[in-house]
Amino acid sequence: MNVDGKQMQPIWFDRDTKTVRVIDQRLLPHEFIIKDLTHLDEVIHAIQEMVVRGAPLIGATGGMGVYVILVQEGSRGMDDQWFFSQCDRLNARPTATNLAWAVNRVQAKVMKTPTLDQRIQTALDESLAIMAEETDNCKKIGTHGLMLIREIADRKPGEPVNILTHCNAGWLACIEYGTATAPIYAAHNAGIPVHVWVDETRPLNQGARLTAWELGKHGIPHTVITDNAGGHLMQHGQVDLVIVGTDRTTRAGDVANKIGTYLKALAARDNDIPFYVALPASTFDWDITDGIREIPIEERNPDEIRYVQGRHDGTITRVLVTPENSPAANHAFDVTPARLVTGFITERGVCDASETAIAALYPDQFKTD
Amino acid sequence: MNVDGKQMQPIWFDRDTKTVRVIDQRLLPHEFIIKDLTHLDEVIHAIQEMVVRGAPLIGATGGMGVYVILVQEGSRGMDDQWFFSQCDRLNARPTATNLAWAVNRVQAKVMKTPTLDQRIQTALDESLAIMAEETDNCKKIGTHGLMLIREIADRKPGEPVNILTHCNAGWLACIEYGTATAPIYAAHNAGIPVHVWVDETRPLNQGARLTAWELGKHGIPHTVITDNAGGHLMQHGQVDLVIVGTDRTTRAGDVANKIGTYLKALAARDNDIPFYVALPASTFDWDITDGIREIPIEERNPDEIRYVQGRHDGTITRVLVTPENSPAANHAFDVTPARLVTGFITERGVCDASETAIAALYPDQFKTD
Repeated sequence: MNVDGKQMQPIWFDRDTKTVRVIDQRLLPHEFIIKDLTHLDEVIHAIQEMVVRGAPLIGATGGMGVYVILVQEGSRGMDDQWFFSQCDRLNARPTATNLAWAVNRVQAKVMKTPTLDQRIQTALDESLAIMAEETDNCKKIGTHGLMLIREIADRKPGEPVNILTHCNAGWLACIEYGTATAPIYAAHNAGIPVHVWVDETRPLNQGARLTAWELGKHGIPHTVITDNAGGHLMQHGQVDLVIVGTDRTTRAGDVANKIGTYLKALAARDNDIPFYVALPASTFDWDITDGIREIPIEERNPDEIRYVQGRHDGTITRVLVTPENSPAANHAFDVTPARLVTGFITERGVCDASETAIAALYPDQFKTD
Repeated sequence: MNVDGKQMQPIWFDRDTKTVRVIDQRLLPHEFIIKDLTHLDEVIHAIQEMVVRGAPLIGATGGMGVYVILVQEGSRGMDDQWFFSQCDRLNARPTATNLAWAVNRVQAKVMKTPTLDQRIQTALDESLAIMAEETDNCKKIGTHGLMLIREIADRKPGEPVNILTHCNAGWLACIEYGTATAPIYAAHNAGIPVHVWVDETRPLNQGARLTAWELGKHGIPHTVITDNAGGHLMQHGQVDLVIVGTDRTTRAGDVANKIGTYLKALAARDNDIPFYVALPASTFDWDITDGIREIPIEERNPDEIRYVQGRHDGTITRVLVTPENSPAANHAFDVTPARLVTGFITERGVCDASETAIAALYPDQFKTD
């Protein structure tokens, strides 16, 4: 997407230097730093420490991680047992299903090739193919979601459509367009007036830092709010539509997404506001049904809650908010039950949040032997 | 309450210096600073800038403000029109009903006295009476709420009762004991094991800063969580009870409280968890019924969202979280409809959240001519 006139992706392969490069999302919006990922440990660090984050993006990074393993270690890449063990290390975050999906996909393709050079080339090609597919998927999500926004716009001519989103499911979380933001960009580009309520999304403030930055760079009207505010705005008719992304969605439609999503879904239901989840096929976990029981929820470092990072005197600074000795608990995701989800916006179209509707859109994933 | 072995209140009258003193709550938990309020402008500033905050406390501060007006301006205090106009200036925050209630009460009492000296003495006595009554009310709220906690404790012997609270409705928000925390302190003192989930409460982090500090000083086990986390914890059986305070509650039981309270009430209802609101009579607004339509919701400076304050290198520092140019909206309260409230814990006992039940507890406020 466009950053100050320059075409940007959160991850890319630099063909000149043969290097995987990423935007360090921990420092946005205050510093724009690009990092090279040339060793497996750097790839794992980037995933764990959220240099890169967002389900489709950590999938793409995991895929590229397989390439990095093979390039870095040379002939050991032909030792299958070692290779598998290294690929396993890439699964450094448990909740988003895209990560294991992409690593497995690239790994499986690599295993079909006989030489190291071919393995390296295959890992790169397959990772780039995943990135191209995800870009295409996000574009299609935008097209399908645009129709939902247009319907609302037609009911309130001349007024902006107010969309609330949680966390960052924008292009920074994907490759291009984003998932939740793809319909928003599409609507804006189609001349439909939109305004986005951006949940700041504690503890790591991906909304306040990343979504606000993305939307600002693209010239889309937006307002940052606390995660506490959405219910009040919905009660007062100031939200027309909620669109969020997801890190893993079960075959029955239960949605794991950034902690706090469930609360917004409850408020949307209480106020009869449509609550949509935008996702590509790669974020469905076709093997599980009950999200609350079956999706592993990552617990992260409590210091992410106790401290807040921002800019002070031109430098990035962390301040302690809590008392020195107060403990904190940091569950990174929650699960919104399918019953609270109005529908899914996928690359294949929009469907209800039910196993039957998902199966109708993805019959290839539901076929029985 | 007890702070490092010293008996403390968030506001008191120093008889030696004849000064109103308050703890500057903006700086907690990092610095413990006491401020003198000797001029009306200082009182207004303390209320507006949240040096003092919490419904019962800003009520008490408003009452003391009437005393400050009279002491400060001498003979002008006998000019009724001027005196009324100055008292009006004390209503510097719109949502909490206690503020206008206390100012009006002290002002009305003052008007019954004929000399300036008597006016000054009356303003002081009546403000101290309000503080004593609120202390007594909070103590009784503790006694009544303790029974609710004991019932839960009896059902899970040996395990702590997990209580979630939002914002700070502790002794810092009141005079002693707190409203929402009074039952928690009472249970702890009665030897019932309790553990408190402390919502950090963005934007001003009264949970992470004040409730965590209070509970820590009192030795009560607690864990700070983001405002996003409560729903997840409730889904997983980790919350037995929610208790919050309120800034204004209608005669029909609609509850204005710190923004985000409504979202927790929705999650409690969705998970069959009791959701109680603790308040003294002074926080009921007997004149209104429909909280969403009738309670004014304060909008505060958006910079309270864009910046976060904490400690860095030993000094209190503010960091910018959002992009430089992203706008923010800062609604300070929301309204939880009575239908989502399990009951009220008042100084007169526990009642359902309905006009009938409230009227049964406060027949004196519901009598018709």
